[in-house]
Amino acid sequence: MDLPRGFRYSGVAAGIKASAKKDIALIVADEAATVAGVYTQNIVRAASIDWNVAVTPSSQFRAIVVNSGNANACTGDEGVANNRQMAETTAAALAVMPEQVAVLSTGVIGVQLPIEKVERGIGTAAEHLSNSEASFTAASEAITTTDKSPKTVQASVSIGGQTVTIAALAKGAGMIGPRMATMLGVVMIDGEVTTEVAQKILDVATAASFNRISVEGHMSTNDAVLLLASGKSGVVISNEADVDQLTNAVTDVCIQLAKMIPADGEGATHLVQIDVQGTESNEEADQIARTVAASALVKTAVTGNDPNWGRIVSAVGYAGVDLDAHKINLKLNGFELFAAGQPVAFDAAEVSKSIGDNFETLIELSVGGGSGKAKHWTSDLTVEYVRFNSEYTT
Amino acid sequence: MDLPRGFRYSGVAAGIKASAKKDIALIVADEAATVAGVYTQNIVRAASIDWNVAVTPSSQFRAIVVNSGNANACTGDEGVANNRQMAETTAAALAVMPEQVAVLSTGVIGVQLPIEKVERGIGTAAEHLSNSEASFTAASEAITTTDKSPKTVQASVSIGGQTVTIAALAKGAGMIGPRMATMLGVVMIDGEVTTEVAQKILDVATAASFNRISVEGHMSTNDAVLLLASGKSGVVISNEADVDQLTNAVTDVCIQLAKMIPADGEGATHLVQIDVQGTESNEEADQIARTVAASALVKTAVTGNDPNWGRIVSAVGYAGVDLDAHKINLKLNGFELFAAGQPVAFDAAEVSKSIGDNFETLIELSVGGGSGKAKHWTSDLTVEYVRFNSEYTT
Repeated sequence: MDLPRGFRYSGVAAGIKASAKKDIALIVADEAATVAGVYTQNIVRAASIDWNVAVTPSSQFRAIVVNSGNANACTGDEGVANNRQMAETTAAALAVMPEQVAVLSTGVIGVQLPIEKVERGIGTAAEHLSNSEASFTAASEAITTTDKSPKTVQASVSIGGQTVTIAALAKGAGMIGPRMATMLGVVMIDGEVTTEVAQKILDVATAASFNRISVEGHMSTNDAVLLLASGKSGVVISNEADVDQLTNAVTDVCIQLAKMIPADGEGATHLVQIDVQGTESNEEADQIARTVAASALVKTAVTGNDPNWGRIVSAVGYAGVDLDAHKINLKLNGFELFAAGQPVAFDAAEVSKSIGDNFETLIELSVGGGSGKAKHWTSDLTVEYVRFNSEYTT
Repeated sequence: MDLPRGFRYSGVAAGIKASAKKDIALIVADEAATVAGVYTQNIVRAASIDWNVAVTPSSQFRAIVVNSGNANACTGDEGVANNRQMAETTAAALAVMPEQVAVLSTGVIGVQLPIEKVERGIGTAAEHLSNSEASFTAASEAITTTDKSPKTVQASVSIGGQTVTIAALAKGAGMIGPRMATMLGVVMIDGEVTTEVAQKILDVATAASFNRISVEGHMSTNDAVLLLASGKSGVVISNEADVDQLTNAVTDVCIQLAKMIPADGEGATHLVQIDVQGTESNEEADQIARTVAASALVKTAVTGNDPNWGRIVSAVGYAGVDLDAHKINLKLNGFELFAAGQPVAFDAAEVSKSIGDNFETLIELSVGGGSGKAKHWTSDLTVEYVRFNSEYTT
């Protein structure tokens, strides 16, 4: 599949990671592009987030520089200076202004960046920019940390008979601190949109995708998603129907990408999808879905291939949503386990086999007659997750 | 230490648990006592909770019947009938009214009680009631499920030169579903108080103790704490100073008892105490303490003896409290790790050794100049916890 027109990529190893794996990526727009961003809500946030909030949205955007292996978070004034240095070095290498550059960092917290290595890496990356699939892949590799594999999605959408091409890359969530991650995502399109429309599209897409996933629910200091629009397809998207169509296409891409994150959660043996319906509002459904997704008991039950409806139903009960317990219905992988607030007789071995045989587990909850609904995706919780997050040290 | 006057206890094995361990307890007041209760906020709640909400508070109370091994939750009309049968059988054995009896159940969800066994067990327990330490211990054993040991606290308080004796027992929290738990607590005092005062004392004590602990944060369908006051010491507690003094004593007992629960959390290798101060309100401090306590990354870092301040500080940042990140200070086991929003140089090996050498880990957070403060106690998160909750099945 084609990549969107108007972008070049590169990914190189600059020596930030001890493993000598790729750790600097550049994503460059050939000419001024439109950018929008969505950032972590954490009050403790990295220098890069403060920078990006200041420079986006914009219609004069040119480049994203990403480093992995170091989050440059909780690093004080030196961290702020190093972040600015990353933007300035990138800007100088590309002959653009620093304010046309966004910075993404991910990795260890509280350690200063090896800024000389980063500067040299940016220089090397700028020399290797290309619009090839290989360069796109190199960039996707360079942003990863604990991910088992890079995460990319490519798609296209026909708008008024003309094709807009979409490419997106992301890295996994689930940890911060030493050996750590953050959720980063970048979506490129070659349609032309205003900054206002770009921000609106990204807000909608993120709300339906990256904001509906969790591994262990720990919000990072560095989470960021950016949307870049080059306009190089020549397709101008401005009327409401076209914007809706593009929004749907970008949302689909973001959902595909977002699901890869809990699917690749540390130690995960299942991707768990939680569908909730029947609440008064979508917000209430979301609250229930998040509460079920956050339950260590639900997650460990899935790990153990256990159709433990008691853990799921009781999590619904403490989600803080005013419900009638007699209207709760639960299906797991299509099997009805609980109906109208009462347990249903079922073949536990058969349901357990269904969980064990499939990587994806589907939890469907219907909790009343309202029109509210929500989806959420999470990892299960395994011995390997705890090992990975407790045994790396001392 | 003496037990409070006016109560008798027993604990017997009725065959509800496959292990043949004790599973029926009775706590009986010799004459009409005052009772107050605090119950789970879960919308999905057991038949016993509905019953107890109806019969407490009261000044004509006589007995608590407890069964372990079966939560009698999500069991429909048959479950409601079985719960009533427990109250009626107990009432008949003691020649009191069913409405003078509270019922506590803990164990597996969604399975009907073996009611004949329960009835026989209640009969046997009623024959063995005594005010001895041995009977008190037997009752404390009979209410346990996954607890490694029974949990009791005894204390006394001098009010106006007269002694009020307190005894309390609890069982561990942390799980529901097969191989399960729930938090149950019962506090007996031999002072005389009105139902209004009893409820007020229990509300205050519970808010400072049982409501400040977590294992994995999954709220049970059966959580309940009851306070019984026999009045048999002859000490009438009615003026404000005396009520305050009794409230403090009961709160101290409840805190001691509550801490035993995360200390005995499944697989726990550390009891983690989180002290937060400097918020605008106590509620904000509590919200931060709960968020840090709920973080799987904080809990696994403690398991690994890792002074990972980044995980703790970033959890503070997403607690939903409006803070100045530059005013966050963190001490771990007395070592300063983070001050005024910046990392502090420290000897990681020394702090790690301190975590490894002590069962209790103390996390102290100061986040501003406000007078708000809160405490929370939780377990760490270990491989054994996940194993215990995922590998029991199929």
